[in-house]
Amino acid sequence: HRLPGLLVTDPEGRPLRILPASQVVRLLVPAYIQDDPSLAGVLNEVTADRIAEKLRGKTVEQVLPKAAGPMATVNADDTIVEVAAVMARERSPLVAVVAGEQLVGVISASRLLEIALGTT
Amino acid sequence: HRLPGLLVTDPEGRPLRILPASQVVRLLVPAYIQDDPSLAGVLNEVTADRIAEKLRGKTVEQVLPKAAGPMATVNADDTIVEVAAVMARERSPLVAVVAGEQLVGVISASRLLEIALGTT
Repeated sequence: HRLPGLLVTDPEGRPLRILPASQVVRLLVPAYIQDDPSLAGVLNEVTADRIAEKLRGKTVEQVLPKAAGPMATVNADDTIVEVAAVMARERSPLVAVVAGEQLVGVISASRLLEIALGTT
Repeated sequence: HRLPGLLVTDPEGRPLRILPASQVVRLLVPAYIQDDPSLAGVLNEVTADRIAEKLRGKTVEQVLPKAAGPMATVNADDTIVEVAAVMARERSPLVAVVAGEQLVGVISASRLLEIALGTT
C-alpha cells in the first residue's frame, strides 16, 4: 500500500515521528541540487553511489530532520472529527492511532476524506 | 486512486496550486476545534450542517489557503533526479508534470520513491 509517509517508532514501538514521503525524498537529494534542480545533470552514477555510501549504515534517527512539532497521535476510541482536528492542527498527512502507548495503526489524510465524505 | 493531495488548475488547465490532503481536511474542520480537538464532541449534526452550508457554492479558489511558494512543476522531459530535486525543494507531496503549458500528469512523493528505489 502506498502511504503518504512513514511512521517512525522508538524501540518499544511507541510512535515517535511522522516522516512525510516528500521529506524522505529530501534525505536522498543533495542540498546543492535542491537549490538548483538544473544541476541534476551533474548527478552521475558515481555521485549517486557516493550519496548511497553516505547513507549506508546510518539509522533512521540519525537522518531524521529535527521535529517541527508534536507527533500527530489519536486514541483508538477518538471520533473521526477528533482525528480530523488533530490532522488539521498538525498539518500532517498521517496520524498515528494508539491504544494506550501501543501503536495500532495509521490514518492518512486521503483515507480520512474518503471516510468523512462517505465515498467508501 | 488515493493521492496525497489535489492539483488545482486555472480555467485553461494550467497547474495553479498543489493542495495537500491534510489542507483539504483543514478546510473542513472549524478553527476552534483545530485549536482544541477535545471540543470535537460539540460538533453535532446541526453544526456540521452549518459548516457544509458555509462551504456550499464556494469555488475552490475562494477556499484555497494563500500560496506558500512557487508551484511544484516539472517538464515531461526532465529526469527523475530533477523531479526529486523540485519535490524536495518545495516539500510538496505532489509535483505537476507539464508539456509546454499543458498538464500531462502528477507524480506523488511515494511513487517517486518507488521508481527511485526500483521496487516497481
